[in-house]
Amino acid sequence: MTDAPGDGGAPPVVVDLHPACTAAEVEPDEYYHATVNGVVDYGLFVDLSEHVSGLVHESTYDGGTFEVGDDVVVKLTEVRENGDLSFELADLDDYETVAREHDYDRVAADDVGDRVGDTVHLEGEVVQIKQTGGPTIFRVRDETSAVPCTAFEAAGVRAHPRIEVGDVVHVEGVVEEREGTYQVEVTAIEVLDGEDAADVADRLDAAFAEHAEPPETEPLVDWPALEGMLPELRSVARTLRRAVLEGRPIRMRHHADGDGMCASVPVQYALTQFIEDVHQDEDAPRHLLKRLPSKAPYYEMEDATRDLNFALEDRARHGQKLPLLLMLDNGSTEEDTPAYKALDNYDIPVVVVDHHHPDPEAVDPLVDEHVNPYLHGEDYRITTGMLCVELARMLYPGLTDELEHVPAVAGLSDRSKADEMSQYLELAREAGYDEDFLHQIGEALDYEAYMLRYDPGTELIYDVLNVDGDEDRHRELVPFLANRAHEDVAEQLDAAMSHVEHERVANGANLYRIDVENHAHRFTYPAPGKTTGEIHDRKVEETGEPVITIGYGPDFAVLRSDGVRLDIPTMVAELNDELPGAGVSGGGHLVVGSIRFVPGMREPVLDALIEKMAEAELDEELHSAPKR
Amino acid sequence: MTDAPGDGGAPPVVVDLHPACTAAEVEPDEYYHATVNGVVDYGLFVDLSEHVSGLVHESTYDGGTFEVGDDVVVKLTEVRENGDLSFELADLDDYETVAREHDYDRVAADDVGDRVGDTVHLEGEVVQIKQTGGPTIFRVRDETSAVPCTAFEAAGVRAHPRIEVGDVVHVEGVVEEREGTYQVEVTAIEVLDGEDAADVADRLDAAFAEHAEPPETEPLVDWPALEGMLPELRSVARTLRRAVLEGRPIRMRHHADGDGMCASVPVQYALTQFIEDVHQDEDAPRHLLKRLPSKAPYYEMEDATRDLNFALEDRARHGQKLPLLLMLDNGSTEEDTPAYKALDNYDIPVVVVDHHHPDPEAVDPLVDEHVNPYLHGEDYRITTGMLCVELARMLYPGLTDELEHVPAVAGLSDRSKADEMSQYLELAREAGYDEDFLHQIGEALDYEAYMLRYDPGTELIYDVLNVDGDEDRHRELVPFLANRAHEDVAEQLDAAMSHVEHERVANGANLYRIDVENHAHRFTYPAPGKTTGEIHDRKVEETGEPVITIGYGPDFAVLRSDGVRLDIPTMVAELNDELPGAGVSGGGHLVVGSIRFVPGMREPVLDALIEKMAEAELDEELHSAPKR
Amino acid sequence: MTDAPGDGGAPPVVVDLHPACTAAEVEPDEYYHATVNGVVDYGLFVDLSEHVSGLVHESTYDGGTFEVGDDVVVKLTEVRENGDLSFELADLDDYETVAREHDYDRVAADDVGDRVGDTVHLEGEVVQIKQTGGPTIFRVRDETSAVPCTAFEAAGVRAHPRIEVGDVVHVEGVVEEREGTYQVEVTAIEVLDGEDAADVADRLDAAFAEHAEPPETEPLVDWPALEGMLPELRSVARTLRRAVLEGRPIRMRHHADGDGMCASVPVQYALTQFIEDVHQDEDAPRHLLKRLPSKAPYYEMEDATRDLNFALEDRARHGQKLPLLLMLDNGSTEEDTPAYKALDNYDIPVVVVDHHHPDPEAVDPLVDEHVNPYLHGEDYRITTGMLCVELARMLYPGLTDELEHVPAVAGLSDRSKADEMSQYLELAREAGYDEDFLHQIGEALDYEAYMLRYDPGTELIYDVLNVDGDEDRHRELVPFLANRAHEDVAEQLDAAMSHVEHERVANGANLYRIDVENHAHRFTYPAPGKTTGEIHDRKVEETGEPVITIGYGPDFAVLRSDGVRLDIPTMVAELNDELPGAGVSGGGHLVVGSIRFVPGMREPVLDALIEKMAEAELDEELHSAPKR
Repeated sequence: MTDAPGDGGAPPVVVDLHPACTAAEVEPDEYYHATVNGVVDYGLFVDLSEHVSGLVHESTYDGGTFEVGDDVVVKLTEVRENGDLSFELADLDDYETVAREHDYDRVAADDVGDRVGDTVHLEGEVVQIKQTGGPTIFRVRDETSAVPCTAFEAAGVRAHPRIEVGDVVHVEGVVEEREGTYQVEVTAIEVLDGEDAADVADRLDAAFAEHAEPPETEPLVDWPALEGMLPELRSVARTLRRAVLEGRPIRMRHHADGDGMCASVPVQYALTQFIEDVHQDEDAPRHLLKRLPSKAPYYEMEDATRDLNFALEDRARHGQKLPLLLMLDNGSTEEDTPAYKALDNYDIPVVVVDHHHPDPEAVDPLVDEHVNPYLHGEDYRITTGMLCVELARMLYPGLTDELEHVPAVAGLSDRSKADEMSQYLELAREAGYDEDFLHQIGEALDYEAYMLRYDPGTELIYDVLNVDGDEDRHRELVPFLANRAHEDVAEQLDAAMSHVEHERVANGANLYRIDVENHAHRFTYPAPGKTTGEIHDRKVEETGEPVITIGYGPDFAVLRSDGVRLDIPTMVAELNDELPGAGVSGGGHLVVGSIRFVPGMREPVLDALIEKMAEAELDEELHSAPKR
Repeated sequence: MTDAPGDGGAPPVVVDLHPACTAAEVEPDEYYHATVNGVVDYGLFVDLSEHVSGLVHESTYDGGTFEVGDDVVVKLTEVRENGDLSFELADLDDYETVAREHDYDRVAADDVGDRVGDTVHLEGEVVQIKQTGGPTIFRVRDETSAVPCTAFEAAGVRAHPRIEVGDVVHVEGVVEEREGTYQVEVTAIEVLDGEDAADVADRLDAAFAEHAEPPETEPLVDWPALEGMLPELRSVARTLRRAVLEGRPIRMRHHADGDGMCASVPVQYALTQFIEDVHQDEDAPRHLLKRLPSKAPYYEMEDATRDLNFALEDRARHGQKLPLLLMLDNGSTEEDTPAYKALDNYDIPVVVVDHHHPDPEAVDPLVDEHVNPYLHGEDYRITTGMLCVELARMLYPGLTDELEHVPAVAGLSDRSKADEMSQYLELAREAGYDEDFLHQIGEALDYEAYMLRYDPGTELIYDVLNVDGDEDRHRELVPFLANRAHEDVAEQLDAAMSHVEHERVANGANLYRIDVENHAHRFTYPAPGKTTGEIHDRKVEETGEPVITIGYGPDFAVLRSDGVRLDIPTMVAELNDELPGAGVSGGGHLVVGSIRFVPGMREPVLDALIEKMAEAELDEELHSAPKR
Repeated sequence: MTDAPGDGGAPPVVVDLHPACTAAEVEPDEYYHATVNGVVDYGLFVDLSEHVSGLVHESTYDGGTFEVGDDVVVKLTEVRENGDLSFELADLDDYETVAREHDYDRVAADDVGDRVGDTVHLEGEVVQIKQTGGPTIFRVRDETSAVPCTAFEAAGVRAHPRIEVGDVVHVEGVVEEREGTYQVEVTAIEVLDGEDAADVADRLDAAFAEHAEPPETEPLVDWPALEGMLPELRSVARTLRRAVLEGRPIRMRHHADGDGMCASVPVQYALTQFIEDVHQDEDAPRHLLKRLPSKAPYYEMEDATRDLNFALEDRARHGQKLPLLLMLDNGSTEEDTPAYKALDNYDIPVVVVDHHHPDPEAVDPLVDEHVNPYLHGEDYRITTGMLCVELARMLYPGLTDELEHVPAVAGLSDRSKADEMSQYLELAREAGYDEDFLHQIGEALDYEAYMLRYDPGTELIYDVLNVDGDEDRHRELVPFLANRAHEDVAEQLDAAMSHVEHERVANGANLYRIDVENHAHRFTYPAPGKTTGEIHDRKVEETGEPVITIGYGPDFAVLRSDGVRLDIPTMVAELNDELPGAGVSGGGHLVVGSIRFVPGMREPVLDALIEKMAEAELDEELHSAPKR
């Protein structure tokens, strides 16, 4: 037995080995804390860590009685040739304990494939936890990649229940290859904290920040107004790429019309490519990206509730992070705010790219990023589709050739009167699209949006828009669908036109009104809004004069104007004052809008509305676009 | 060749070995039935069982001609040192055959993990059969646990097609470990019958009965009326726990309102815990438990058809048992019986816990258990939520702390006037909930029930009710949702109130009527029933007098009363007599109800209804709760 | 170094080995193209193929400088005892290169199970490609069977991205057994073309053609009219069996009524059996067969869009072929053609079996096969159910006993007046079904079709029709459901009958009209069409005279006649001429039909319609069947 050193200097140091320490981390003549794990005639077997143990020979101490489990202090006397360690017991009156962390060589996740069969050490963030019928699988991501780490407690029982998604961990385990994928069978896993965790987080953060940075792109056309918005789009691209890198799902909600499709489909396509690259898994886009058409022109509470519910279920079931919500061609208005507030209690960032007249005061406090041409002194003429084609090119390089015709479709669909439309049309023409065919694409998109209802119909829409689609089929499909749409519109108008009522109102405009529920087929294409728009377009063409058209049903009215300035929000406010009990709501902007009311008050509401329109200011510049 | 023994005593015994018998079960000098499986120069190879075979040396018989497949009788002459068996042919004129069963040491399912690599014998019930692309997996449960047993016939081909779910079997097989789970690779499987099967069934039954026994609980509050119902709730708890143990799925249908949520969510939570414990599989609750809000206040034929269809598909696809149907805060009335009858042709037990006015004569013959305070001389004041919190505590111990505030929410939601509400409120107050916040929870539940429609929205509702939810989020989410609900109600009433018509009817009560389809927004929260209720509440407050409110649409009317005794079933019966061709149906109780009629007869129905109400008896004690 | 041969004859031949060639395919003294893969002091290591390499000893050439990757020509000088190959460098001025294909023994897919552990060669068509998180799985089918072939590039990364579904390939790989299924771990895969591909395709084609040939069957009853249609049904059976063999999914759309169920369920049952046999996978029918009730009596554009969308998603996600569309008891009319045209841009064959009045001019150019009794001079009396029971028997032998009662149900459901009904009834009687029970089955099917809406409810319908169902349950379930249907009809008629208006019109017929939306319950069974039919039947029975019944709602009218010849298509055309702005459409045939119009024009449309009916020709022979 070693006695305490006689000198009166500093007390001796006793090392407390981390359980993961190996024999490479001990040295002769050091003192260690140890635990007795065997008592034999010739001495004691002691454990210093999970991997370090040895013998205290009986001859080195006076044969006191020890039991398995006793804590002792030992001194390492010899490391034998065969690696065995010999100790002697230490009897120190006074000492200082110093912890020794396990020193390990960290392996990058990307490199585990070179270490099959070896014990390795990984540091990273737990991005997913999946309980199988057998082991628990922790997906651990470091700055290079993500690796599944399997731990087994009992069949179907969650191993290491304290470890949660988002924890920064150190994993020790053996690399295995299983059907060509690599995984680490966990021997130890510990949550890192303090400096260690900060180091890992910093490395991840730096790697993500670098990787999230969008590629440099030049805009497709020369348009200063658009260029002014590019920095904001780059920021959105950065946010979306970062979400992908962090394994956060993206839930995309978009207006279900032509421009909304032209906005969302390129972004979907670009994100799909980026997700496949990052996660090296063909199934990953299905889990990490959803595109969902919205039935209303704003984010309804029911949709938000459903989105939140799905997100929470996915988190509970698959250990997924809560999603980022990306609103496209929707989301800029005050009507969107109740839904945003519902999500506000959860970790769900919201990003909006829209070109409808925004209400930044209401919206901005609730969303993380908000891109809208009106916030730059521009207007709807920069359509969301135009913005999102630029966004898609920032999300994933190399898509330009496939997307060159899309902004023109977006512009035509939303009747953009921008001078720069000619550049987009020229770009599309060079890609083989004449203006007539671009129009047809827009009509085909609108028709399919109706037929698909709430289904994104990705493959079908890819063919219609010719984004990652089949060119030949695209060329056949678009005229067929556009033609179907034409025929259905013609049939609807055949029934409706003879019931359109005309009057010339005080300001000189032609006012047309039609009961679209009573004089058009219900539950078929085109829906009342589109039917009203088509009637309006015909009347504008027929008369060449200022025209207002009202298509109404039992509890709604769709409004369209050419050459008359309608301040719809003000009219709605006034109607509410004048007609208590009519429950009027709705919105729109200058030349297009819609209102709702309770069915029993339809007549007074319509009468009052028309009276207001009769006094609205004429303005030759105004044409009814974008449709809503 | 052995000749028949010469003495005239009892004929010799020839043993017929069970195919599973081993060499340990044969003895020299015994006769055995055997089958020739090889003919060689020097003798015959014979099989006595799948594991016992040996040689009949040519020298021991006179060289008669034999063919493979011949049945012979042999006598065991020697067991050689190397284990080989030598036989001689027996030529017995007369003998008695005795079957010898295979003797084996049964291993408990719980212990197979200790026997990896060994051949073991299991006895138990087949609780699931799953066909994979490779082997067939039989899940066999004994009194300790369940074990997957894999049998391979050909890729994707059902092995042992005669074995069905519910069979009691003896499995012989080799224990394997696969990713930390144990399974038995079947070498033989046989259906047990007679005494053997009965033994297994008895063991299972005893084990299940013991395990199914609910823990002892004390009710949360001191309430004799409630206590009288505890034995029935214990019985329901026993039935549900037993279903879980037997692997029978539970399909829960509940009224989609505040009390219905307060009833079903704690039961869902408790059952989820219990299922996870029993099946040691985090995915098991998803397969074995579904909570489904009902759109109507009774069990509709369409819902029953859908439930049955799902159950049959699950059985066909996953080999699952048919479910138990648990009706909560719904299910006690005659309107539920057609749906019950549709299920009656299938093995689907039905258990009802409800507090709406019951019709035991119609319901009881069709359900297995029926708990309802009215059947104990009590009434709606013991809400289903109060009952089900007690039930949840019996289903799984240790949940009390998490559920203490729930009965108070249930009582407030259904306006329970029970004196004991004060105890529940006190209990909730101690848990940190003031009455105002409890009200808000009820309103938030009602609002989310509307927004979620047919989706249970489990994770979201857990947060709203703070059952296994996030406390901080709960505290933020509830006021937000309650406030949204308030605003939506206010908007609806803004439109509606000015269209409410008033008259004072013969019995002195104030009668208010409103066309809720015409003077309220459609397809938004609050729905017509709730809108009517809110109008009614305002009028009760305003007048302080007896009030009847009728909210009607094209083919329905919602009825509410305070201080007037409405016998709605009788009124419906009378209306049907007086107005043939009006197709009146519906129900309710004293102060709340709803009726339906054909649209073309609305006016006469409403007129006749109001006439009857004008003569109804006043009763100050009556207040309109619970809502329906 | 070998110099070029001196004689002036043909240039020497240098062999270019296929990468898969082995040492068995080289011979001494031949020249080969080779690549340097190692340079050492004593010579060069060269590769002739992936499996053939050897040493060019330094002594055999003059020591020129070579680098790894250099292309050289070598001559094989010696094959040593240990298999090593010795070469010398050749310096040929002029030579002719001849490719040497790798010679291999093709193994039939059916036989790979006998070759576990061996390297084998397969030739076949890629019928599915599935990307897992690990390897890519190519399902390769030859004339005997299909085998999964796994190839690994990197975890979750598509291996051999050039290989597509439909390619004819040669696979070299090692056979592995995995949980009892066999798979080939790919070492090489190449797309075959030219003659090689044609050989494989021919073998597949011949095998498929043979296997697709339907078994010979005799019709269930002696009916020349039906027999004349059998060759066409055989052709349909061949097409469907071929689709199964080729792994093409079948999507079945059918009329959701009694006859439609009697048509589609036997075909579903037979195809399920055949798919399980062919694909040896219990899950295969779920992937390869969908039965979908159509809500409308024709193929709606929305359904076609949804079908196409699902098909495209399945192809993208699971690598499945696009489906074959099988229309049953629907699909023969001009109204189906827009939907057919939508599919026409994709590889989706369409097969129709229907007995409604067909429009072959419109339909036939768009479909691959079209079976309809009218095209044989017969009529609706040969119901689709009768045709499809014969079809099912051709699809899979041995089902006759289970289907004998089905044609009688079909005939009764669609009120077939064929004389041969007596044979079908007799057949059913012998199978234990009296006519009353057969009627009840029809009513139960109709009721369940309503309750299930868009869900096929396979297991439930199997029980109701007793096709692969439970006989005992069938006997209990059918009367219960038929009785429910009766009660619901009675309740509906109780409300409706007193509102039926009667007039005797010019041609002497009784005309009855009823507003079925206003005087019947909405959204319950029976729906307006059935309600109208039941009223009509009562009136026919009551009067014994010619009867026309019109049941109308806001925008539709259902027409039924007995004893009056209604030319509905002509009436629709005339109404459209006479009433511009009424948007009349619809169809039907002689005694049954329906029309739609815009709600605002209901009165003039009904007035004009009745005027036309008043002049329609009486014809005692005409009875209103089949219902639509």
